[in-house]
Amino acid sequence: MKVLGLIVEYNPMHNGHLYHLNAAKKIVKPDYTVAVMSGNFCQRGEPAIINKFARTLMALKNGIDIVFELPTVFSLQDAGGFAFGAISLLNNLKIVTDLVFGSESNDSEFLKQIAEVLYNQPENFDYLLKKELKKGYSYPNARKYALKNFLKFDSENLSKIEKSNDFLGIEYIHSLLKLNSHIKFHTIKRIGSNYNDETLKGTISSATAIRNAIKNNFDYSQALPPNNFKIISDELKEGRGPVFFESFETFVLPYLRKMKRSDLEKIYGFKEGLDIRFIHAANNAGDLKEFLDLVKTKRFTYSRIRRLLFYSIFNFDKKLIEDSNKYGPQYFRILGFTKKGQNLLSIIKKQVNRPLISTASNYKKILEKILKDTEKDWDVIPELYLKQFEMDILASNIYSYFYPNKSQRKSGMDFREPIMIE
Amino acid sequence: MKVLGLIVEYNPMHNGHLYHLNAAKKIVKPDYTVAVMSGNFCQRGEPAIINKFARTLMALKNGIDIVFELPTVFSLQDAGGFAFGAISLLNNLKIVTDLVFGSESNDSEFLKQIAEVLYNQPENFDYLLKKELKKGYSYPNARKYALKNFLKFDSENLSKIEKSNDFLGIEYIHSLLKLNSHIKFHTIKRIGSNYNDETLKGTISSATAIRNAIKNNFDYSQALPPNNFKIISDELKEGRGPVFFESFETFVLPYLRKMKRSDLEKIYGFKEGLDIRFIHAANNAGDLKEFLDLVKTKRFTYSRIRRLLFYSIFNFDKKLIEDSNKYGPQYFRILGFTKKGQNLLSIIKKQVNRPLISTASNYKKILEKILKDTEKDWDVIPELYLKQFEMDILASNIYSYFYPNKSQRKSGMDFREPIMIE
Repeated sequence: MKVLGLIVEYNPMHNGHLYHLNAAKKIVKPDYTVAVMSGNFCQRGEPAIINKFARTLMALKNGIDIVFELPTVFSLQDAGGFAFGAISLLNNLKIVTDLVFGSESNDSEFLKQIAEVLYNQPENFDYLLKKELKKGYSYPNARKYALKNFLKFDSENLSKIEKSNDFLGIEYIHSLLKLNSHIKFHTIKRIGSNYNDETLKGTISSATAIRNAIKNNFDYSQALPPNNFKIISDELKEGRGPVFFESFETFVLPYLRKMKRSDLEKIYGFKEGLDIRFIHAANNAGDLKEFLDLVKTKRFTYSRIRRLLFYSIFNFDKKLIEDSNKYGPQYFRILGFTKKGQNLLSIIKKQVNRPLISTASNYKKILEKILKDTEKDWDVIPELYLKQFEMDILASNIYSYFYPNKSQRKSGMDFREPIMIE
Repeated sequence: MKVLGLIVEYNPMHNGHLYHLNAAKKIVKPDYTVAVMSGNFCQRGEPAIINKFARTLMALKNGIDIVFELPTVFSLQDAGGFAFGAISLLNNLKIVTDLVFGSESNDSEFLKQIAEVLYNQPENFDYLLKKELKKGYSYPNARKYALKNFLKFDSENLSKIEKSNDFLGIEYIHSLLKLNSHIKFHTIKRIGSNYNDETLKGTISSATAIRNAIKNNFDYSQALPPNNFKIISDELKEGRGPVFFESFETFVLPYLRKMKRSDLEKIYGFKEGLDIRFIHAANNAGDLKEFLDLVKTKRFTYSRIRRLLFYSIFNFDKKLIEDSNKYGPQYFRILGFTKKGQNLLSIIKKQVNRPLISTASNYKKILEKILKDTEKDWDVIPELYLKQFEMDILASNIYSYFYPNKSQRKSGMDFREPIMIE
């Protein structure tokens, strides 16, 4: 049996994603396809434009059989943490045989070569990395130059690791190595618009361009499968979105004005003077844009700064993230599945050593049951399980407060049942 | 020498306030008049519509010689805490001879009689009070009925303690008794509109009506002395206001969604199940109005709920408020003074046992100096001094974030110099 695993954000799922999904299926010819998807907050350090249930529905209507949620403690991390969470989850399902990801270079041997350097951390590479970091580069850039020197890249090779998909791809392979996973990986050449392109171009556009179109009320219908366009339109009609990063400014900036260095010290990622920069910027900025510009330096990317903003409001404490990055997601949160996916779920259920959560309100009961169960060799750290899951609930509750429609803002979207479709 | 003390909010200072000030001067015939004024947050549990420096300027232009800030830990308290902070401050100046306050009943003997009951807490009264509280009344109402039964009020007398000015007046006298103060108090009959009237009526309107007029863009010029109208207009033109309670909803509601009962337990005032009610309401409300209605019961007034909202975001910890209510304001923060007031300040400076703060950025240096000074018998608790003052700074920094004009939102308004006028 072949099971294809995908790592997605689908923010929102558009024609490019659909093309990618179908191409992946052509390569793998899977019996089933599952996706691990970011929940309400994405890796760029932004809220998803539409909530995770609507985005799950899009995925299920377009060929994914089960959608699992990538816990927020991973979906809001840098490429390394994001990849580790997603790969761990897929690997722990014990049924995924193949992983396919988009790649600008489409040169999987080359990406693997780099991932092996990252995994083996040869001493000489470590030295080169530290040297580049000392020059004041951001971590991604420092690593890039260290790799260049270590592997003696020419400029063509160098450009391959500058693109966002390749960059993530390297981290996926890196995590597969770390977990000694048997999942086979394949790359697909990215088509159409660049990930970061901001304007709509034909039927294949970037998610960024589509989000911009939603923001500016442009027609984006051509860029999405028609059923997905309808799902988004319905959500917008109900006022459950769009949710934008900027909506959070009246929350995060006054919030940061009350934080002291000693508060930020407890939060993951506030090193290299970022605590001081955040506090200074929050007290001097009139909006989020100004805030980002005040914090920004060559060393810190905008995505990192945005992610840290959410770390501070969600209270991503150091131990939680460090433990998560060691032990991976402690549960499989099912956001939705198709009739076909339901069969696969019953197979998965028998094999896994971490619990499937379909009814979120049972999350404590599920843990209690596991703790009493002596038949199966469960591999769950109770405290970490609770903290990861409660972070997802908190993230949703804060997310929904920023819906345009006041009557939709209630907490508790997680306590809806998973989506089931024929 | 006679020094008249007034306790004000001036939110904003209007013709009714000016009438009151002049009437008070007629009674006392003071050499000087000083005011203790709420800073950026007022006793109703709302931000002031215009910042404290603009409101200070209004006071100085209309006959007050020095304006002291009532620290936020008092200005955001119920009548009892508010009164104790203000009376302590005036009493500790050691130079105020007379206090005048507005009163609906204008029956100072009667108010004193009640204050004495509150001060002496006879056993029988305590019993009656508890009995009323058990019926589920709010504290102010329970106390009212207990007083009614204890002092055998007829309905005319009862109505006297239902009005907001009389209610505060009783607390002023109560605090004078507690502090064994020599300050003489006088009442003035309130004229014109009721404190809570919401619509403008002639030249004497309530502050509530004026704030509503500002909100709704109605003409309110007739209700204010012309120089004050100009001060407000200038502030609004610069976008430093109006600041409304509702502006805080995108901050306080998501903020509360991340709080747990164990967090609220540390905050002053979250008793009688209010912690549970707050968390439930924050998770179910789409805006502040809905939130207030979800928390509201017969027992809790809207003002109390609004104040508690600010306690939670400002982190009013129990010990800070309990200590403040025991030891009073630890400093005299000067917001502004006239040339005439300057003379009085130099007299005050020689007598007081708590520091005058005119340049806020020196607040730590001032404390250090006191701690080394052996000549004077300083009466300051260092930790309380720091916590009270830093709360004022925090309150200002969060307040200014809600200015309409983004370029005016910078923190640090407290580090402006005090206002000096000829």
